[in-house]
Amino acid sequence: MNSNRLEAFSDGVLAIIITIMVLELKIPHGTDIEDITHLFPVFLSYVLSFIYIGIYWNNHHHMMHVVQKVNGSILWANLHLLFWLSLIPFATGWMGENNFVELPMALYGIVLLMAAIAYFILQNRILAIQGKDSSLSKAVGKDFKGKASPILYGIAIISAFYKPWIAAALYVLVALMWLIPDKRIEKIYKEN
Amino acid sequence: MNSNRLEAFSDGVLAIIITIMVLELKIPHGTDIEDITHLFPVFLSYVLSFIYIGIYWNNHHHMMHVVQKVNGSILWANLHLLFWLSLIPFATGWMGENNFVELPMALYGIVLLMAAIAYFILQNRILAIQGKDSSLSKAVGKDFKGKASPILYGIAIISAFYKPWIAAALYVLVALMWLIPDKRIEKIYKEN
Amino acid sequence: MNSNRLEAFSDGVLAIIITIMVLELKIPHGTDIEDITHLFPVFLSYVLSFIYIGIYWNNHHHMMHVVQKVNGSILWANLHLLFWLSLIPFATGWMGENNFVELPMALYGIVLLMAAIAYFILQNRILAIQGKDSSLSKAVGKDFKGKASPILYGIAIISAFYKPWIAAALYVLVALMWLIPDKRIEKIYKEN
Amino acid sequence: MNSNRLEAFSDGVLAIIITIMVLELKIPHGTDIEDITHLFPVFLSYVLSFIYIGIYWNNHHHMMHVVQKVNGSILWANLHLLFWLSLIPFATGWMGENNFVELPMALYGIVLLMAAIAYFILQNRILAIQGKDSSLSKAVGKDFKGKASPILYGIAIISAFYKPWIAAALYVLVALMWLIPDKRIEKIYKEN
Repeated sequence: MNSNRLEAFSDGVLAIIITIMVLELKIPHGTDIEDITHLFPVFLSYVLSFIYIGIYWNNHHHMMHVVQKVNGSILWANLHLLFWLSLIPFATGWMGENNFVELPMALYGIVLLMAAIAYFILQNRILAIQGKDSSLSKAVGKDFKGKASPILYGIAIISAFYKPWIAAALYVLVALMWLIPDKRIEKIYKEN
Repeated sequence: MNSNRLEAFSDGVLAIIITIMVLELKIPHGTDIEDITHLFPVFLSYVLSFIYIGIYWNNHHHMMHVVQKVNGSILWANLHLLFWLSLIPFATGWMGENNFVELPMALYGIVLLMAAIAYFILQNRILAIQGKDSSLSKAVGKDFKGKASPILYGIAIISAFYKPWIAAALYVLVALMWLIPDKRIEKIYKEN
Repeated sequence: MNSNRLEAFSDGVLAIIITIMVLELKIPHGTDIEDITHLFPVFLSYVLSFIYIGIYWNNHHHMMHVVQKVNGSILWANLHLLFWLSLIPFATGWMGENNFVELPMALYGIVLLMAAIAYFILQNRILAIQGKDSSLSKAVGKDFKGKASPILYGIAIISAFYKPWIAAALYVLVALMWLIPDKRIEKIYKEN
Repeated sequence: MNSNRLEAFSDGVLAIIITIMVLELKIPHGTDIEDITHLFPVFLSYVLSFIYIGIYWNNHHHMMHVVQKVNGSILWANLHLLFWLSLIPFATGWMGENNFVELPMALYGIVLLMAAIAYFILQNRILAIQGKDSSLSKAVGKDFKGKASPILYGIAIISAFYKPWIAAALYVLVALMWLIPDKRIEKIYKEN
């Protein structure tokens, strides 16, 4: 099985996830400025999750670019990743509608943590096939971001119960860390 | 007509089915731990259906891989399969929101049974064109899983009215049976 | 611009239309047999519309198969068709939730009529480019079905106000008429 | 990274945006003519936004046609555009359900303005790679429409607070301006 259909299916799911999140922005009944300003927390949480899904789509695309053939284990590792990503709209909505209080903040971190672990598993399944000398292996390297993210999510989940704003700051921090384009992979590609 | 657009359309429908199922996880108004734990049955039913759709996508992909040309009968057999799969979100939501009681448990089995029959019809339509000596024909072989599933669904539907947990166990069992990758087809491909 | 992206976009829209229709099957709160049986009209209307979207997808696919290049007028004729098809879930839901009474029955016919006209315009735009001696032109031929459908929809719309069941019968009749695979186009393809 | 997956993902998001907008056409409970006529403003706003998304899809397609390779900055500029377009269903629904009054009219213009700016950024990112002598650069030329649109949106946003109908007229005017096919790009393509 070649990787094209896997990418197309993943693209479809990610496109739908990113778009149904906006449905949480419920249309207000009134037309005053307050009707729209009280939606601001929901809007902020939408922006953050939109960026996260964008990052996953971007990284997923870079990684799959190297893969020619997929076997059953890659396929299910990919579905496992999509499963956790599919919970992001739920976690986003709960967090945004409740002004970023404790439990919703923690749950958002848990979903991000599980997605990060699922991505790590998928990457390892692909590396197992590609081998240590593959271009992907070189590109991933020590994978600083991939290892730092789950730790930061873990800290965020715990701090959500004490100081939710620390969790919020950490979620934004991780997103910014990934937003910076992954020069490593692009560099390796150019060398080949 | 070549099979690419059929696959792309099926992928699109499956991607949407898998993603709208998550909309049944209604965002709770409160932010207590109970607000999230009482969603656990809905979450469980979502996990099960996600795996089922994943299995169908996987098998569908393997089967279509062999098909170069599709005619009208394959096209409608495929739409027939998508029709029953499109009812899975409904059956999943009804089952999960009612704590796996009798009638919803039975309906879930009926939808799975109809989808299994639709898949069987589609497979036969393709085999009719490919012929008995085709690689798909060899790969399908005696099709143990394909024949066992409808029987197990049938038992599950009946037992749902007496002991719903037996039905639940059977649905999980069939999913696990299919989760084990279909070595037959992969083996045949490698030989060719 | 080649026709691949037009087909992919149309497939995406049709896949979403077909799947969001099922959201009108609202999950009942109770778990009695009545809770599910009173959904039967909604289910029936869903089946009918699913078949209609399937027919449009099928015919659209056959027609686009011939088209290599699309210009602006084909592109907008195609979007015009998708616009009317996008109203089918609304018309379907209104009809099904109100037990096939007068006005919803008529509206369903109006949407089908507008979609048929939009399809006719799209076909003519393509024929204008392909020329009278093209294989599509031969395949379409006298286009009996394409001409009979709007007339039958028209009769159905009028009869909906007097005898809604006549309208229902006509909608089923037109669907059956199209379900029979379009031998003409397939035949022409084989000849070429 | 080649541009195909970017186009496919954008197509997916645009297809979903265009289709979920129709969900704002809430199915009425009654079956009288008033039940359907009071939906007319929502329908009108749906038509307008459908045309806008169609225009963006069309222009996006033309522009991406020239692009072979995409880098990180193009990818994020594209996601930025999709972000603002994803808010169109919300702005459309708010405007349509409130009979085109002040604030919703202004918000609709703001979303259109932000999308236009995002499109402009994306175009510039692509031109930066393609160079001044590229066919896209020639095709864009002085980009009269691209520069006039944000100005007209700006006027519309301000006038929305005084005379909402002026804003409405301007939104229709800009849509009509873009509906006229972009002869420039098509011409340049034919020359090459």
